[in-house]
Amino acid sequence: MVKVNTNFQRLPGSYLFSTIAKKVSEFSAANPDKQVIRLGIGDVTKALTPTIVKALHDAVDEMGQDATFRGYAPDLGYDFLRHAIAENDYRGKGCDIADDEIFVSDGAKSDSGSIQELFSADSRIAVTDPVYPVYVDSNVMAGRTGLYDEKAGKFEDVIYMPATSENGFSPEFPKEEPDIIYLCFPNNPTGTTIPKERLQEWVDYANRIGAVIIYDAAYEAYISQGDVCHSIYECDGAKTCAIELRSFSKNAGFTGLRLGFTVVPKELKRSGVSLHDMWARRHGTKFNGAPYIVQRAGEAVYSDAGKAEVRGLVDYYMENARVILGGLKDAGYEVYGGVNAPYIWMKTPKGLDSWGFFDYLLEKANVVGTPGVGFGPCGAGYFRLTAFGTHDNTKAAIERIRSI
Amino acid sequence: MVKVNTNFQRLPGSYLFSTIAKKVSEFSAANPDKQVIRLGIGDVTKALTPTIVKALHDAVDEMGQDATFRGYAPDLGYDFLRHAIAENDYRGKGCDIADDEIFVSDGAKSDSGSIQELFSADSRIAVTDPVYPVYVDSNVMAGRTGLYDEKAGKFEDVIYMPATSENGFSPEFPKEEPDIIYLCFPNNPTGTTIPKERLQEWVDYANRIGAVIIYDAAYEAYISQGDVCHSIYECDGAKTCAIELRSFSKNAGFTGLRLGFTVVPKELKRSGVSLHDMWARRHGTKFNGAPYIVQRAGEAVYSDAGKAEVRGLVDYYMENARVILGGLKDAGYEVYGGVNAPYIWMKTPKGLDSWGFFDYLLEKANVVGTPGVGFGPCGAGYFRLTAFGTHDNTKAAIERIRSI
Repeated sequence: MVKVNTNFQRLPGSYLFSTIAKKVSEFSAANPDKQVIRLGIGDVTKALTPTIVKALHDAVDEMGQDATFRGYAPDLGYDFLRHAIAENDYRGKGCDIADDEIFVSDGAKSDSGSIQELFSADSRIAVTDPVYPVYVDSNVMAGRTGLYDEKAGKFEDVIYMPATSENGFSPEFPKEEPDIIYLCFPNNPTGTTIPKERLQEWVDYANRIGAVIIYDAAYEAYISQGDVCHSIYECDGAKTCAIELRSFSKNAGFTGLRLGFTVVPKELKRSGVSLHDMWARRHGTKFNGAPYIVQRAGEAVYSDAGKAEVRGLVDYYMENARVILGGLKDAGYEVYGGVNAPYIWMKTPKGLDSWGFFDYLLEKANVVGTPGVGFGPCGAGYFRLTAFGTHDNTKAAIERIRSI
Repeated sequence: MVKVNTNFQRLPGSYLFSTIAKKVSEFSAANPDKQVIRLGIGDVTKALTPTIVKALHDAVDEMGQDATFRGYAPDLGYDFLRHAIAENDYRGKGCDIADDEIFVSDGAKSDSGSIQELFSADSRIAVTDPVYPVYVDSNVMAGRTGLYDEKAGKFEDVIYMPATSENGFSPEFPKEEPDIIYLCFPNNPTGTTIPKERLQEWVDYANRIGAVIIYDAAYEAYISQGDVCHSIYECDGAKTCAIELRSFSKNAGFTGLRLGFTVVPKELKRSGVSLHDMWARRHGTKFNGAPYIVQRAGEAVYSDAGKAEVRGLVDYYMENARVILGGLKDAGYEVYGGVNAPYIWMKTPKGLDSWGFFDYLLEKANVVGTPGVGFGPCGAGYFRLTAFGTHDNTKAAIERIRSI
């Protein structure tokens, strides 16, 4: 008799965004006349830009002719895309990353869920609190987290590093020594960043203790201030301790196209084993490449026209961030983030916890946000709004929130 | 100091098809004047058909307009595609499978690599020998297979079920009791099938011992004979013991588009836990849906025009299978498969082992096939050719093989 992987049963409830979707869907069914504005899930709303659309059409036409048809993509990504990424996102910005250190994938969510496969089952993970749920949940499934303490909202074997208004959302080094450290800057969910010198301290710390940093830079395109790293490889020594995750979702609007990549430097080794080679083998065995047409769309993001268009998308959403930040501040709310990131992290009003405020906002303003506690216990009493709506919807949402 | 997942080091050499690609690339570099014909990897060569191309263009246009843009897809697949699959591939053919028992993915390779996550780490797997390498390698990475015995070409904790000409490529039930049984029919690599009554015996066996069958039906569109199941759910009781993997790659030419699906019936439970719910949670946590445009292309496969076009593709490749089978038989080779599958499994000529014949064929005929031993020790002395070439290339390859 086969036994199931009982680690799955340690997962508390369902995935955060599934729960939100269910609540909203129930509300809409019960209130068909109410127009709900969604500033909850971090999903973009603007169309793909003309240069990307053209690249897709062109690639589709290639796939429709025997002479130009493409079958299986290379497992690790087409050379044309790996080169465009390494050249534009790294070498052109002073980070010495080779084309073959770029691993193209179907998105940063998949990679952030799968990257833990490279490490031993008894590795100790450290995450910020609050945190993007995938880092923890994928480790729960792999059996690395111990039991869930319902009351504390924590797994017994996970090291949580609080990021709150008290420490300026810059977590301190943990007391216990971690093996794998998940960091995400600009941060999801808080929308905050840390200065370059602090990231350098994290790199030095990881190199000192032999830990590996999984650095999620999915939101780097939103950085507007100078002292914030776009890549962890801007820090000295990062290539011997850090893996970086990137996405096309949030800069170029690829949430529905699925494209991302992971950087694993060849210098990154532990016990003499190359993590670069391991990830290549993992990709070769359990993944079959991102679609050709989507990789061509990714390449178009790096053309001159593509870059300008994508900059326009980011500017559009950051205008929303300014509207949300300003509006909420004026209304007396305590708000964070929103300057180098498309997320605004607000304190819930007195007397309401995160889910209470979620229900209140959905009911009274018909606005959907994300309860901070869904990202971890230190998110309790916080609430996340995203800047990914349309200008009209975002303005309307803020008006509604101000008027309740 | 973090430790790596040492299970990766138990993997022998590199992934089979990467090794082949490397050998061919080296040969071509050394012999730029030689035109190599590839009948090795199971990759299609015909263009996407007009109905599918149109669906892609239409969906790209939708993605290029704010009003019709789609962001994140539902993790488990769009309803329109889950419905089309369940209706056409199952209910229309007498198998009672619900829309929400279909899980859309980026391909059967990903799913066949990830499905093992649902089971406990000490589960015992059984595979046919020869076998598609992903089933075994993904379990090696997860630590279920024990050490590799280089001499035997086997992992010590894997149950191998020989499929050879001696038993008509129909493996017997293993002596030791397995927890997870991987079956693939029509078979990759041998191109053979088993009669419906034998598959029913497998289902009864699995139900009796509480095992779960992972049934890979990626090649079902190639079945031409009546007594062969297209789906394991044609067998009584399969819904309590079987998960089925399917692909759009081999019928509709989606190898470069990436689309597949897995069927996990709601009745499939072990220790009271629903594997359907576990797979839904796995998808929700570690996968973010297949691209919208690709799912629309998948939907088009089920239109009347799409069905006719896709039938044409399958017929085209099966004409190749006839050419290969007939040509090799005439030349005195012992050949199997090729009637209900796009694979031809041949015995290597006297005095040459699988890799020896690979090198000989590449050198003398400039034809690439796949060494049978790459699929397991019982594949030694066999060689796989695929029917996925063009008519011209396939005929030329067979002429070349006959003339050496």
